[in-house]
Amino acid sequence: MLKRVDVRFILNPEDSGLKNPVFIEGLPGIGHVGKLVADHLVKELKAKKAVEIYSHHFPPQVMVKDDGTISIPKNEIYIYKSEGEGPDLLILVGDFQSISNEGHFELVNAYIDVAKRFGVRRIYTLGGYGIGRLIEEPYVLGAANSRELVDELKEYGVKIEEGEPGGGIIGASGLLLGVAMLEGIDAACLMGATSGYMVDPKSAKAVLDVLMKMLKLEVSVEALDERAKEMEKLIAQIKEMQESAMQQWKGEEDLRYFR
Amino acid sequence: MLKRVDVRFILNPEDSGLKNPVFIEGLPGIGHVGKLVADHLVKELKAKKAVEIYSHHFPPQVMVKDDGTISIPKNEIYIYKSEGEGPDLLILVGDFQSISNEGHFELVNAYIDVAKRFGVRRIYTLGGYGIGRLIEEPYVLGAANSRELVDELKEYGVKIEEGEPGGGIIGASGLLLGVAMLEGIDAACLMGATSGYMVDPKSAKAVLDVLMKMLKLEVSVEALDERAKEMEKLIAQIKEMQESAMQQWKGEEDLRYFR
Amino acid sequence: MLKRVDVRFILNPEDSGLKNPVFIEGLPGIGHVGKLVADHLVKELKAKKAVEIYSHHFPPQVMVKDDGTISIPKNEIYIYKSEGEGPDLLILVGDFQSISNEGHFELVNAYIDVAKRFGVRRIYTLGGYGIGRLIEEPYVLGAANSRELVDELKEYGVKIEEGEPGGGIIGASGLLLGVAMLEGIDAACLMGATSGYMVDPKSAKAVLDVLMKMLKLEVSVEALDERAKEMEKLIAQIKEMQESAMQQWKGEEDLRYFR
Amino acid sequence: MLKRVDVRFILNPEDSGLKNPVFIEGLPGIGHVGKLVADHLVKELKAKKAVEIYSHHFPPQVMVKDDGTISIPKNEIYIYKSEGEGPDLLILVGDFQSISNEGHFELVNAYIDVAKRFGVRRIYTLGGYGIGRLIEEPYVLGAANSRELVDELKEYGVKIEEGEPGGGIIGASGLLLGVAMLEGIDAACLMGATSGYMVDPKSAKAVLDVLMKMLKLEVSVEALDERAKEMEKLIAQIKEMQESAMQQWKGEEDLRYFR
Repeated sequence: MLKRVDVRFILNPEDSGLKNPVFIEGLPGIGHVGKLVADHLVKELKAKKAVEIYSHHFPPQVMVKDDGTISIPKNEIYIYKSEGEGPDLLILVGDFQSISNEGHFELVNAYIDVAKRFGVRRIYTLGGYGIGRLIEEPYVLGAANSRELVDELKEYGVKIEEGEPGGGIIGASGLLLGVAMLEGIDAACLMGATSGYMVDPKSAKAVLDVLMKMLKLEVSVEALDERAKEMEKLIAQIKEMQESAMQQWKGEEDLRYFR
Repeated sequence: MLKRVDVRFILNPEDSGLKNPVFIEGLPGIGHVGKLVADHLVKELKAKKAVEIYSHHFPPQVMVKDDGTISIPKNEIYIYKSEGEGPDLLILVGDFQSISNEGHFELVNAYIDVAKRFGVRRIYTLGGYGIGRLIEEPYVLGAANSRELVDELKEYGVKIEEGEPGGGIIGASGLLLGVAMLEGIDAACLMGATSGYMVDPKSAKAVLDVLMKMLKLEVSVEALDERAKEMEKLIAQIKEMQESAMQQWKGEEDLRYFR
Repeated sequence: MLKRVDVRFILNPEDSGLKNPVFIEGLPGIGHVGKLVADHLVKELKAKKAVEIYSHHFPPQVMVKDDGTISIPKNEIYIYKSEGEGPDLLILVGDFQSISNEGHFELVNAYIDVAKRFGVRRIYTLGGYGIGRLIEEPYVLGAANSRELVDELKEYGVKIEEGEPGGGIIGASGLLLGVAMLEGIDAACLMGATSGYMVDPKSAKAVLDVLMKMLKLEVSVEALDERAKEMEKLIAQIKEMQESAMQQWKGEEDLRYFR
Repeated sequence: MLKRVDVRFILNPEDSGLKNPVFIEGLPGIGHVGKLVADHLVKELKAKKAVEIYSHHFPPQVMVKDDGTISIPKNEIYIYKSEGEGPDLLILVGDFQSISNEGHFELVNAYIDVAKRFGVRRIYTLGGYGIGRLIEEPYVLGAANSRELVDELKEYGVKIEEGEPGGGIIGASGLLLGVAMLEGIDAACLMGATSGYMVDPKSAKAVLDVLMKMLKLEVSVEALDERAKEMEKLIAQIKEMQESAMQQWKGEEDLRYFR
């Protein structure tokens, strides 16, 4: 039986050996910025799966993989035991957020419950911040559930802009900050500025850069860099096609002019 | 964990020192009339926060304040210990109503429960009443859950119009009257007539005027007056622009006529 | 506190003195046929209110009456102690059905529960059957949850048409038959054929005629007759206007022809 | 009272005499392929009804049969005691799937629970796979919740195509595979390729052919064949009409050309 929100521990929090880990959330959202960063971290850090979360609030379907086997919508929490100066990590990833409004609250309750059982004292949620146009130099916008944490974000070059993001922070990235606040857990959201039109690995890299500094963490960014370069090429091609189409159109306009 | 409807008492009703307070509701709605009045009262009376209400029925998001800190959707109840002739007050304010139909019922149940714990014997809900056009002299329309209270409203100049408001009173302002009736608590709704097109501080002032008389309460209305004057200027500007556009259009019409 | 489905007995079923009453449902629906009949019966029989049903599945609002007092959405069950040959009655009336899909099931569960507590052995649900055009001679279409009851309906002139109503019977009128079947209670639905475009007292009268025969009941139909006549006049006026508009249009056509 | 998900055993699993039956699901879906196959099996095998499942997640209505009696939306599970080499069967059929997202999860939980009580070790879900155009030779696409089962499917000629079905498998046919996986039950989905525009008995026959081989089962396919032939004729007629309309149109074009 699958419960409404069904948290399954693969690894006992007490046996994980983690010490006050930092919780990182990177679920799908604008530009898939958060998801790109969190998935990248899980892979590069060879993080270990500790928790699976199933829910009636995910879409009622399964996905079919290339080999014909299936997967059911779930979120996963991976753990990483730090080998350096930085803190231990809990990383929340997955292919879906809740498809109902109430489901967001129920799932975030579950995430916070897991975090507390692992002794989490700080949460970073990762997301994109859609600005409606292509941008050359991505930057990172921030928000936090305490004044002190906002100040800390600024020290790492994270921008705090009045009235931004205007619509608030929607879904798990936002609610985690709110519910954490009520539970006395520090939490900040790092939002990579992005067009909002496509998956944006360049914006993800900007978020990852900030995150690595804050977490005293070093991971290869090569994979993200590569995806970013591919995306850049794609964008360049699109621009070229647009210009060429524009030229052609103007050409035809001119001809028409001379008839 | 955030419960479906999560009522958190900051202040124990028994320790509040309130005696049969009047409950005032001013949540967002048509022309934000109710919200303007209730927020104004909280500020002018320096009312003290007593209860916070969180809910899965509010939007699944957080708002970002100008300093980069966040707030999670909630409703708040403030208390005011009367220093004059009027009754003590409980004032319900907030940025959201339920976003689901069922949620309205669950939240109103919670409001009534709080009211009862504070010994409330009367409720005033505040709202706007959209009439679809700009009005010069705002008036206040009323409804109540007992004949006696309707008569009392009339004594204070509140209008009772047959068949108005035709669509009933939707959301917390309406349901509070209904559920209060079933609980044996007197409740009335004061609706400021308003265009329905914009935030209407002038209509809010009309409601506040009635409310102050009914509650034997005196608060400065300066802030509302100022906002109302600003809004008047804005409306005057819009009218001028419209007329000027109309003139221009007529002018062009005339010219066309003589061609 | 208002429960999700909140059944409030004004009168104890044991103290009602009813003996195996017949349950009649007449909630709003197509042409308001069922509602017209049930409301008429309650009035003419001077039936006594026994139960009020409130629910989170009704619209989150109150209605304002002409005298300024309010009413909260509810369904009501009235009882009638037969003075003649016919059976005692339970009559379900109200201004709303559930506004959610699941709510229909929860409310019908409640209706059936009340019916069982009163010892009901038979249920008639009343509704309209929209055929998409004006009809001269309204007839009554039927369906039932047992073969025997279908045969009984036929004896009273109720039509059983293959494949009608094609879309099934939606809402309380339908579900009551289904849930009653599972509880071993006989139930039939009487549907007055109606255009589906307007409130139809003439169709309601046709349903009432059948019902009176089946229940060995005599009530004045004057009020329904009068409303039906008014509606007829209205329809005649509309037809006249249409024809006159058609004439005029033809006239103009002709003139245009001669220009 | 009808519970949210209301499973009613007509026959005690312990008394059924079934031994590790295979569970087959054939509810409505694309081209009604799964439903056609499962209904056909129930009929041809003279399977016996063992379970009825009612739910608040089905449409709030009843259907009216040709004789005027009604039926309430339900799913049914039939059992078949094998007389040959093949396994015993449990066959899930019905006229509806859940109409809410969450309902799919609750219903699938119930199906799995029933399956476990009957000692089911393997599940086949049947469905259609819409490809957006008419196809001459229907084939069967597959997916499964284990690598071994995928391999087994291939042996029976079931196609496994990379990236198909792209949108995943939605509803009971998909979720059953996912939830079964979590419960340690092997499950595969057989999808008959179909246009997606109409009920497709030809595609159903292709699925049935595979299923019969996998289950070492022999049933007459005559009825499906006949329906398939009728459908073929219908399609041929439609094509002819289209061509004739095309001819006519071309003819008119030509005439126009000569004017």
